Amino acid sequence: MEQVPRRARDLGITVGELPTGPLNAITDVAGVTVGHTTIDDGADLHTGVTAVVPRQLGAGHRSLPAAVYVGNGYGKLVGSTQVDELGVLESPIVLTATLSVFRAADALLTYLMDRHPGGVSFNPLVGETNDAHLSDIRRRPVTERHVLDAVRSASPGPPAEGCVGAGTGTSALGFKAGIGTSSRRVGVGGSPYTVGALVQSNFSGVLTVRGVPMPAAELVPHGDRTEPVGNSCMIIVATDAPVDARQLGRLARRAVFAMSRVGAAYTHGSGDYAIAFTTTPPPRQPLPDGLIDPLFAAVLDAVEESLLNSLFMAVTTVGVRGRIQHAVPHQQVLRRLAATGRLSAPA
Amino acid sequence: MEQVPRRARDLGITVGELPTGPLNAITDVAGVTVGHTTIDDGADLHTGVTAVVPRQLGAGHRSLPAAVYVGNGYGKLVGSTQVDELGVLESPIVLTATLSVFRAADALLTYLMDRHPGGVSFNPLVGETNDAHLSDIRRRPVTERHVLDAVRSASPGPPAEGCVGAGTGTSALGFKAGIGTSSRRVGVGGSPYTVGALVQSNFSGVLTVRGVPMPAAELVPHGDRTEPVGNSCMIIVATDAPVDARQLGRLARRAVFAMSRVGAAYTHGSGDYAIAFTTTPPPRQPLPDGLIDPLFAAVLDAVEESLLNSLFMAVTTVGVRGRIQHAVPHQQVLRRLAATGRLSAPA
Amino acid sequence: MEQVPRRARDLGITVGELPTGPLNAITDVAGVTVGHTTIDDGADLHTGVTAVVPRQLGAGHRSLPAAVYVGNGYGKLVGSTQVDELGVLESPIVLTATLSVFRAADALLTYLMDRHPGGVSFNPLVGETNDAHLSDIRRRPVTERHVLDAVRSASPGPPAEGCVGAGTGTSALGFKAGIGTSSRRVGVGGSPYTVGALVQSNFSGVLTVRGVPMPAAELVPHGDRTEPVGNSCMIIVATDAPVDARQLGRLARRAVFAMSRVGAAYTHGSGDYAIAFTTTPPPRQPLPDGLIDPLFAAVLDAVEESLLNSLFMAVTTVGVRGRIQHAVPHQQVLRRLAATGRLSAPA
Amino acid sequence: MEQVPRRARDLGITVGELPTGPLNAITDVAGVTVGHTTIDDGADLHTGVTAVVPRQLGAGHRSLPAAVYVGNGYGKLVGSTQVDELGVLESPIVLTATLSVFRAADALLTYLMDRHPGGVSFNPLVGETNDAHLSDIRRRPVTERHVLDAVRSASPGPPAEGCVGAGTGTSALGFKAGIGTSSRRVGVGGSPYTVGALVQSNFSGVLTVRGVPMPAAELVPHGDRTEPVGNSCMIIVATDAPVDARQLGRLARRAVFAMSRVGAAYTHGSGDYAIAFTTTPPPRQPLPDGLIDPLFAAVLDAVEESLLNSLFMAVTTVGVRGRIQHAVPHQQVLRRLAATGRLSAPA
Repeated sequence: MEQVPRRARDLGITVGELPTGPLNAITDVAGVTVGHTTIDDGADLHTGVTAVVPRQLGAGHRSLPAAVYVGNGYGKLVGSTQVDELGVLESPIVLTATLSVFRAADALLTYLMDRHPGGVSFNPLVGETNDAHLSDIRRRPVTERHVLDAVRSASPGPPAEGCVGAGTGTSALGFKAGIGTSSRRVGVGGSPYTVGALVQSNFSGVLTVRGVPMPAAELVPHGDRTEPVGNSCMIIVATDAPVDARQLGRLARRAVFAMSRVGAAYTHGSGDYAIAFTTTPPPRQPLPDGLIDPLFAAVLDAVEESLLNSLFMAVTTVGVRGRIQHAVPHQQVLRRLAATGRLSAPA
Repeated sequence: MEQVPRRARDLGITVGELPTGPLNAITDVAGVTVGHTTIDDGADLHTGVTAVVPRQLGAGHRSLPAAVYVGNGYGKLVGSTQVDELGVLESPIVLTATLSVFRAADALLTYLMDRHPGGVSFNPLVGETNDAHLSDIRRRPVTERHVLDAVRSASPGPPAEGCVGAGTGTSALGFKAGIGTSSRRVGVGGSPYTVGALVQSNFSGVLTVRGVPMPAAELVPHGDRTEPVGNSCMIIVATDAPVDARQLGRLARRAVFAMSRVGAAYTHGSGDYAIAFTTTPPPRQPLPDGLIDPLFAAVLDAVEESLLNSLFMAVTTVGVRGRIQHAVPHQQVLRRLAATGRLSAPA
Repeated sequence: MEQVPRRARDLGITVGELPTGPLNAITDVAGVTVGHTTIDDGADLHTGVTAVVPRQLGAGHRSLPAAVYVGNGYGKLVGSTQVDELGVLESPIVLTATLSVFRAADALLTYLMDRHPGGVSFNPLVGETNDAHLSDIRRRPVTERHVLDAVRSASPGPPAEGCVGAGTGTSALGFKAGIGTSSRRVGVGGSPYTVGALVQSNFSGVLTVRGVPMPAAELVPHGDRTEPVGNSCMIIVATDAPVDARQLGRLARRAVFAMSRVGAAYTHGSGDYAIAFTTTPPPRQPLPDGLIDPLFAAVLDAVEESLLNSLFMAVTTVGVRGRIQHAVPHQQVLRRLAATGRLSAPA
Repeated sequence: MEQVPRRARDLGITVGELPTGPLNAITDVAGVTVGHTTIDDGADLHTGVTAVVPRQLGAGHRSLPAAVYVGNGYGKLVGSTQVDELGVLESPIVLTATLSVFRAADALLTYLMDRHPGGVSFNPLVGETNDAHLSDIRRRPVTERHVLDAVRSASPGPPAEGCVGAGTGTSALGFKAGIGTSSRRVGVGGSPYTVGALVQSNFSGVLTVRGVPMPAAELVPHGDRTEPVGNSCMIIVATDAPVDARQLGRLARRAVFAMSRVGAAYTHGSGDYAIAFTTTPPPRQPLPDGLIDPLFAAVLDAVEESLLNSLFMAVTTVGVRGRIQHAVPHQQVLRRLAATGRLSAPA
């Protein structure tokens, strides 16, 4: 009997002490919406597209402050140099599979050209990880339609997690992984802000839950595990705090730092990227850096929990060449946590 | 009567005192080949693809040392973060028009996948400038076929210059511009090396030839000049000197610095990028940095002359919406140079 | 009765599965020596100097490949831009207290000038953290003599740890901290290499040992803890593996990533820097990046254990204004670890 | 008879078409003051200290937006990593000689500690170039008193130029050089702003004035010229425009690009750094980047003219070991300019 996907928190596994937003998702940041297109033919294709669409971009703002951090540049992040230079996000953020990244970027261009009929210069931002372990990546199955669907269907409310969209075929820490999200609420200088994260997880290491290692070799049937190649992690951080591009760069760095908390090995082949943006553009004056620590803490916790969600919400998947990637077995994890006294709350 | 395109040196305009290679072109670096696909329908389309293909990549080397420098990140350079991280070029370098950059990258992926049948991760490197001033860029006319043709037709020998390939629709310094190339020979520590450059020129400023300003406003008919938007400059530097990625980064910076010599204004909208690579991978030990100055000088001179060639080899072009971009009038330039005693040699 | 300082491993607390070098110290990297000058007047001064001196610099090599990574640039790392540019270490690395960093750099200059009588350009590399919580930092007590003593007394063998040298007055994660070191042995492509780390720890967060949080608030007497300001972490990584500056930059990043494993909060005020160098300069050809993962793993583990050692080897210290910073209580930590089954071995 | 130092503009040599401020100096930016301490014993010592002190720092602002650009990192810029991280200037900017840079930084610390009696963390910003060609740099003659005098004597009004302060012993482009300054007035979005520059020039290349090369070999007596080693260029850009740190980084890059206009060779040994700051901190909303080009143009012109002033205002100097560095011979330069028709106006 297949296990029902559940979020970390619903299993009694919490991260940190900061409160989450109402959905515990990136969509808790007002205006931020998420859409997925899942491509899963039950056989060789397990891939897709995930879009994070800040509605502020279409509602009076041509751009929002943004920054990128490259923890390990093995991988592609279409649009990164212009974000570095100008400090702004001008398009929805799209995630997909490595070999489909350019088709996705071109499709996003179509979307942007439609919205700006006279425009001749756009900077679509598209990240990727390599899902070749479970999906026939060389078929480049992502079409313009898939991307437009993901972007246009983006909605507020709880985003789907696990084996969905750009996470359909990804694996992390020896288990089936995918998309995960989480959020935190913090007070900064007397004002409340939300920090949300969304991850496409696909990297090596030993799963670590609340500090307790959960080696895949001990939790899933022997022989089934094969280490994927060219894996990576894309992390998106959104906030409504009035921070500028430089400060968002500081947030983005901490998003990659947080990968360590779930056991990331930061291997050569793992392209680890973070994109951070705020929905609050100038003229709001940026927060003084001396007050920024709650946002840093929120990023660390929200990314950690997003990564856990990306794993706990995924399901065992049989992919190309019959490769099986097992879901994290919830009960075994809970038993180990309980044995160490590290379970936050009864599941 | 239309003026015959001539290279700067053939007009008697030399740059610096270092000798050029036999072709005075990037193809003087052994193994480096260049191919173009020109898209010019005589009406609204004036665009294309230029490929720089180091044959060493297909002959025993999976990669060559490389670096990127972003002088102004307004623009896209697909593949840049992985070059930063790993310090290598793994693909031909393709240049094209802004809105076609992702289709070109996807086509280059096709090329790479064909050559590496089992590969699931590639890092195509594709740069762009915005040729919307003369070409209907929103049609995204570049197809996979155009890119594959440019890459596969790449050859040694003198590359075509001016209104060809990715330079078909570009403008610089108030004049029609395009592709230009040049090279220099230098001795470093007793060994001879070649440095070659190829540019796709498309930026603002006041044309300056051997230090003498040649304002477009004074040289071409009034009323015809309109300032293009989103212009940029892509510079490719190739060498056979044994330099590593860090040192190539130093060369790349000087490629952008050299733009100043021809009057670049380094405006906000000009995405100025340089890519530098060597055809001599390890195990050759890198040159000591203390000996590197001749390579720096060669980059400065080769880029300056490439930029001049990109202008002098271009022809007056009527583009989309009937816009005219005039070629640099050779005789007027020569007269001004002669008047200032700054002509190198009789034309 | 005051607790006897013990290293993590001697307490039965191990990190990872890679073997350590014979000393489990940065000095396991052949040629790397460490020296300390401790300034502790038993009253207001608790500071000092720590020097890491690769003997290869004085024995035929003017420089060694090196790189710097700035995880959080709040702080000073004298000499960093030249390391970025040239990719080399030209001097011993000195660590000290924030307001003494320039006097230390000037003293290191004296050392370098003595060794190179005709030299007119040197790049001393000096890092710092802020020990103002326990030491009267504004007195700038570090003299040239202190620095020269640390550099000249540097020796192979087990370095002193805890409240010594540049760690005399530092605090981390709510406890007294200081200097810590560790090493790992790895095989890469069939060859054995050593990776060593040395840290000056001084940052915020919640101490986490083998995944188990050890909040200072629960382990040490109430009322004594005050959060230091302007704290930071300096990390030095040494190896004998043939890696170049770019690859050392990859190692340096992972050194900062490893701070997360012991509970670092990566706060605004914590200037987190890593310096990585190799004792094996060219002409050794650099390792292929595809083989580099064992070095990455070694960095993560060696830095984590160095950080633990910096804490477990420190002793409760009464500093300026009577402030007390408590040592980590070993037995309480061991009890908690035992209770969670996370103790590696009996102490 | 020795030539009287004159500024470029007073010789009839103008740069660009933008108007200068009233003083044509960095002090045209309201609140920016400059002080020098010159150390010249008429024998072996030709060095000193130059301080740029924005009065806004002492008048209600703890910091001002700032950025650093490293064109070539061979050299030291004390304080640069914290400027990168936090985007602010917290101290006067001090320039001096290479081997005195740490003593100057320590002295600046004294100044900052005096002004902030409780402070335990400061980020003095100190740049340097190598004046060893003319000065006995190994004596490290700069004392705390010299630095404090330069900072405390800083005044509005026309700064001294040429062989003064940190420029006392520097050389550039084959001639005696030193300190130079200039300014420009621009309108941006209807508001008037000032951009000022101050340079410490000390680099290789062929002097180029208004595009006309003036090789030292042709202008000064043979045999006297020796190429200095370890030369560099420090450039300070100040403005009152409301730009943030990211945008100041864009200005700083163009400051280094401008060196090309006077013939810089951008050699390996020339550490070329620019620091840019604004006297207008938040809450002023930053300028849109789309309006920033006039500031870029102002930087290019002001830096070019500052470099020319640093040369034209210098005087022939006999330095250590009897080395002579000749001033640029004004009349010869003017004759050459006149011969090419490139003289702006009668001298």
